[in-house]
Amino acid sequence: MMQAARGKYALFDRTVADAVQLMDAAFRSPMSVPVPVDAGGATHERHKQNYLELQTAGALFAMTGDSRYATFVRDMLMRYAELYPRLPLHPAATSPESGGRLFWQTLNETVWLLHAAQAYDCVHDRIPAADRKKIEESVLRPMAKFFTENHERTFNRMHNHGTWMVSAVGMLGYALRDEDLVARALYGTRRDSSAGFLRQLRKLFSPDGYYTEGPYYTRYAVMPFFLFAQAIDNNQPELKIFACRDSILHKVLHAALQQTTPAGTFIPMNDALKEMSIASKETVVMVDIGYDRCGGGRELLTVARGQGRVMLSGSGFRVARDLAAGSAIAYPYRSLELRDGPDGTEGGIGLLRVSAEEEKTLLVLKYTSQGMEHGHYDRLGLLYYDQGREVLRDYGAVRFINVETKNGGRYLPENSSWARQTIAHNTVTVDGHSHYGGKLALAEKHPGQRRFFETFDSTCQSVSALAENVAPGVRMQRTILLVRDPRFSAPVVVDIFRLTSDETHQYDLPFYYDGHLVNTTVATSAQTRTRGTLGEEQGYQHLWVEATATARDAVQWTWLLGRRYYSVTSAADSGTEVFFVRLGAGDPAFNLRPEPGVILRRRAASCVFASVIEPHGLFEPVEEISRNARPAVQDVRVLADSDEGTVVEILGDDGLCWHVRVANGNPSRDAAHAVAGQRATYVWRGNVSLERKAH
Amino acid sequence: MMQAARGKYALFDRTVADAVQLMDAAFRSPMSVPVPVDAGGATHERHKQNYLELQTAGALFAMTGDSRYATFVRDMLMRYAELYPRLPLHPAATSPESGGRLFWQTLNETVWLLHAAQAYDCVHDRIPAADRKKIEESVLRPMAKFFTENHERTFNRMHNHGTWMVSAVGMLGYALRDEDLVARALYGTRRDSSAGFLRQLRKLFSPDGYYTEGPYYTRYAVMPFFLFAQAIDNNQPELKIFACRDSILHKVLHAALQQTTPAGTFIPMNDALKEMSIASKETVVMVDIGYDRCGGGRELLTVARGQGRVMLSGSGFRVARDLAAGSAIAYPYRSLELRDGPDGTEGGIGLLRVSAEEEKTLLVLKYTSQGMEHGHYDRLGLLYYDQGREVLRDYGAVRFINVETKNGGRYLPENSSWARQTIAHNTVTVDGHSHYGGKLALAEKHPGQRRFFETFDSTCQSVSALAENVAPGVRMQRTILLVRDPRFSAPVVVDIFRLTSDETHQYDLPFYYDGHLVNTTVATSAQTRTRGTLGEEQGYQHLWVEATATARDAVQWTWLLGRRYYSVTSAADSGTEVFFVRLGAGDPAFNLRPEPGVILRRRAASCVFASVIEPHGLFEPVEEISRNARPAVQDVRVLADSDEGTVVEILGDDGLCWHVRVANGNPSRDAAHAVAGQRATYVWRGNVSLERKAH
Repeated sequence: MMQAARGKYALFDRTVADAVQLMDAAFRSPMSVPVPVDAGGATHERHKQNYLELQTAGALFAMTGDSRYATFVRDMLMRYAELYPRLPLHPAATSPESGGRLFWQTLNETVWLLHAAQAYDCVHDRIPAADRKKIEESVLRPMAKFFTENHERTFNRMHNHGTWMVSAVGMLGYALRDEDLVARALYGTRRDSSAGFLRQLRKLFSPDGYYTEGPYYTRYAVMPFFLFAQAIDNNQPELKIFACRDSILHKVLHAALQQTTPAGTFIPMNDALKEMSIASKETVVMVDIGYDRCGGGRELLTVARGQGRVMLSGSGFRVARDLAAGSAIAYPYRSLELRDGPDGTEGGIGLLRVSAEEEKTLLVLKYTSQGMEHGHYDRLGLLYYDQGREVLRDYGAVRFINVETKNGGRYLPENSSWARQTIAHNTVTVDGHSHYGGKLALAEKHPGQRRFFETFDSTCQSVSALAENVAPGVRMQRTILLVRDPRFSAPVVVDIFRLTSDETHQYDLPFYYDGHLVNTTVATSAQTRTRGTLGEEQGYQHLWVEATATARDAVQWTWLLGRRYYSVTSAADSGTEVFFVRLGAGDPAFNLRPEPGVILRRRAASCVFASVIEPHGLFEPVEEISRNARPAVQDVRVLADSDEGTVVEILGDDGLCWHVRVANGNPSRDAAHAVAGQRATYVWRGNVSLERKAH
Repeated sequence: MMQAARGKYALFDRTVADAVQLMDAAFRSPMSVPVPVDAGGATHERHKQNYLELQTAGALFAMTGDSRYATFVRDMLMRYAELYPRLPLHPAATSPESGGRLFWQTLNETVWLLHAAQAYDCVHDRIPAADRKKIEESVLRPMAKFFTENHERTFNRMHNHGTWMVSAVGMLGYALRDEDLVARALYGTRRDSSAGFLRQLRKLFSPDGYYTEGPYYTRYAVMPFFLFAQAIDNNQPELKIFACRDSILHKVLHAALQQTTPAGTFIPMNDALKEMSIASKETVVMVDIGYDRCGGGRELLTVARGQGRVMLSGSGFRVARDLAAGSAIAYPYRSLELRDGPDGTEGGIGLLRVSAEEEKTLLVLKYTSQGMEHGHYDRLGLLYYDQGREVLRDYGAVRFINVETKNGGRYLPENSSWARQTIAHNTVTVDGHSHYGGKLALAEKHPGQRRFFETFDSTCQSVSALAENVAPGVRMQRTILLVRDPRFSAPVVVDIFRLTSDETHQYDLPFYYDGHLVNTTVATSAQTRTRGTLGEEQGYQHLWVEATATARDAVQWTWLLGRRYYSVTSAADSGTEVFFVRLGAGDPAFNLRPEPGVILRRRAASCVFASVIEPHGLFEPVEEISRNARPAVQDVRVLADSDEGTVVEILGDDGLCWHVRVANGNPSRDAAHAVAGQRATYVWRGNVSLERKAH
């Protein structure tokens, strides 16, 4: 069918053409199966290239029956059968626990096997028995044994490395018709459901489909989940794998897609390479198999069109066919909350969107659990996208993936010393220490906690969360409003960050922005001839202080990004210090990008940072037009604050006067609140109230 | 005809629709003709908006005959007739010499008149005589008189401000059928050809059509040249204005288009806003009138398509019509030299291109004259584009155009203290002083000098130029080769910069790059905890030193930009110091972008900086692929150097061994040269010889 349809479905044709081109290039070059020596270098890349060629050749053989492809797979696997038995632990392995033989870490080696198993499954009927024996006994089974025995802990672990491993072994099991291997993959090495794929399906995702490591690693982890699930569905349909746990894979698929930015990249929370996008091969696998096995969904066809390619498989074929038939509808990116934790009780993330084509606003409040080793200490961190751009940003990971000259493409030292630290994020650092002291075990005990997530009023969406004991006795609570109002040309953000403690602390709240600072209302003292760092440790050693200022009342600064201005106006008092910082200190190997930020610092037992983030105006350099370079908001004041509630006043041009009231106790949609301020007592009902009035 | 053709030619339809939309918005809002108070603020923008609406309404009336548009022009001009007589010198004027009445500088005021004159020409038959009298006597003629009398010096000046002024007055002259105004515009206020438009055509362009201020201001200056030329052609066809001076406007048009980068922006030499592109309204005017009046040129249709709009005029209509007819052919961007100076004897610029679609390489060597007040002190400066990106960059101007909160949108102080200084450019600064001491009068006496420009060998194009007395007794000569060779995946650049003097000097050669530094072969000492500046003045006060190193032999560093790596490998000796710098010191108002650079420093009487700039490898973050992060070139050595010639050896992977030989005396295509080095005597013929051999 696929063969007969060639020339009819553009996306599938392109996929086939790419695959044929890849294999033509492979046929033209001498086959190379080198002794592995490096991590991220030439032999590493060669073996990655090889597993891609294996898989591609297998799929092309299945589709065309052209024996050249089957021969290629046999020849290459025979070469591996020669090589593999001779390999000790990889010379670049950082430990025997994580080290592979073909690759410096077992993770890559499981990826090799996952691809090789698919290829072998396609062609093994065409391989002479003697060769089959050699391939199976010298490389495929020994590698599976290496995983299930030498790396049993990883195999049984509830972690993406475990998923890759069980999927690779399980798919080999189906290819070899080896029920024991399949059973170990599904139920753990002890075959007792204490581990394995089915338990991973239950433990690694929340009931909403959120994957605990965050969106970047979701993208990576979904590939074995979807590929192995497809294999299970093909071989053991009675398991109804795609219906498991209330169709969890269907939820995973949509949770992953919703966790992308307006530019199509994955939200860069936790360790994340910021360029990674829905165009990645793993996401193609997820979307195509998801479309094929999770009951369709014409909105997925639009995602596939954006990906520009499909899998070389029946799933990919059907996606291309239905897309060509004009069945696609827009993907419904929307505001939503995704709970974290196997039971959905470990916080989550709140995504607020305005999806009007001209705006593409996205706010992300992070109140998940720690997210394992790749998690960052950034409870209540905020990200903000507008015009399709990242306006308030997360650094992501300090890593140049696969770049040999950057520490072999591994995570760099500044990933720990900077990117994972609290001060690297748009949230509060207490007394210069990262949340939970930067201790993983402690942080894992304290997931963020949701308070409320309300989107019933599309002109005033809100999300609120809290984190307790980020420092001993310190409770943080943050409430974000995304407000649409005709007085503003684009949606504005209200950010109310409340800290409470019995003791006095130093609270630092950064806003890391993209763009060029245009002006500020505070009188700055700039470091123009020499420059020092903001501190000595916990990430502070990486920040140059460009200028400092002390506030009297509200602090306001404006920057230019793309065609728009952005201003933060933040309530302050005479004790508020302001630091204009730039990343890049303590970086002898030039690993960091020189990104700017503004940090508000207060010393208090309890305090409220109340800010408005306002996009405004227009800058059009080719037309030489600049309009409304000054924001409409002029002042932000905290009128009242207690454990009952917080009241913030926002004043601006043309008599703009808004009151934002947030309840601080247990969430309730209809509870009445009254909070006394200096000028008045403020009363409202519900979790949030926004009163828009004129002076 | 235009009216009848609506719906047939997409580009013209869009132009009409934009114009109608603009006027619909104008009709909906109350007309505003405020007393001018600011430079770059609300009243400034309002008057700019008004002249745009005037011109648009006039053109729409001419096309549709809809009387609403004529009424609009009359009403608005009547408002100006009320306002203008009351206006003193603009309150934000910086001097009576440059200050206007409606705008802070006369320049904007001439632009207003140029637009108003066009509008008035379209509608004046429909304005009652009494209103016409008031408009002409209260604003149009007084403004012309203000220019020809109060600003006679500017009016008669050979400068783009003069061109705007004579064009505005001349077009008003045609609209009023006032031969005296027209004659003053064409021949100067004394009507004796000692000034005026025709003399400007002779003096402001070189015989190759190069405009002396450089490409950014070319873009600005061409608009009055083409608009007034078109008006002259309509009213006095006997002057054959487009044939003047061997069709100089045709040459100007193509010189301007050739001086754009692969991204369509104007090469940012001298004071320049880097975003400015062929999409600008001035370039649309130039291309449309040029197409219509300079004998067509189907390649211009492709430029027009890229601009995405046409003029609302007969010229624009014909461009859109011919484009719709499928007549467009690719614009032939190519290597070429443009001489500077009215006689073509004041240096010039050399553009070397490889225009293959996948490469889009462009090298620019600047050896022009100073370029008047907006010129930079950057003799022999180098720019390099690849993948369509600026790889070795020029800062451009320090200015946020029309951004009120950045000094009213004017040039900022750092434009003088940084952007115009020599150290801000990819050329040599001698003893820490800008060329010619940064003195305009002295610099104007010393244009750069061409040596040779050779593109007959498409695999080895070259350009060479020199500059004398940039510091007393110091002679600089730079030769650039753009080499295509199958050993390299993309064209490579050889840069041989030779300095000679009788006395010892400090020579600093920067390479300002875009991208992220990946690695370097020199052992760096990084400033990780405190940071100081490279110097105290002449631009050095704006550079932070990030790290320093002392070389032993060749210096190499690699950075990543987009999908490619770039390496510079530069011959060095044990006296060569290396500074890794970043812009941003001495910048209390945050006016500078934090761009990185590497500066090579030598102390010698004479020396040669010999470098290879090599694009290499691939970085694909979504596919997680990195290939060839290390360059193929490993070493660069100067084998011999004398006044006769310089010989450079380039060594690299797989036995790569190139010899580059450059003659240093008077250029000659066939002269024989022999230069003795330590190992051998090197002989060749011609200006440049590239010998590509294996070890």
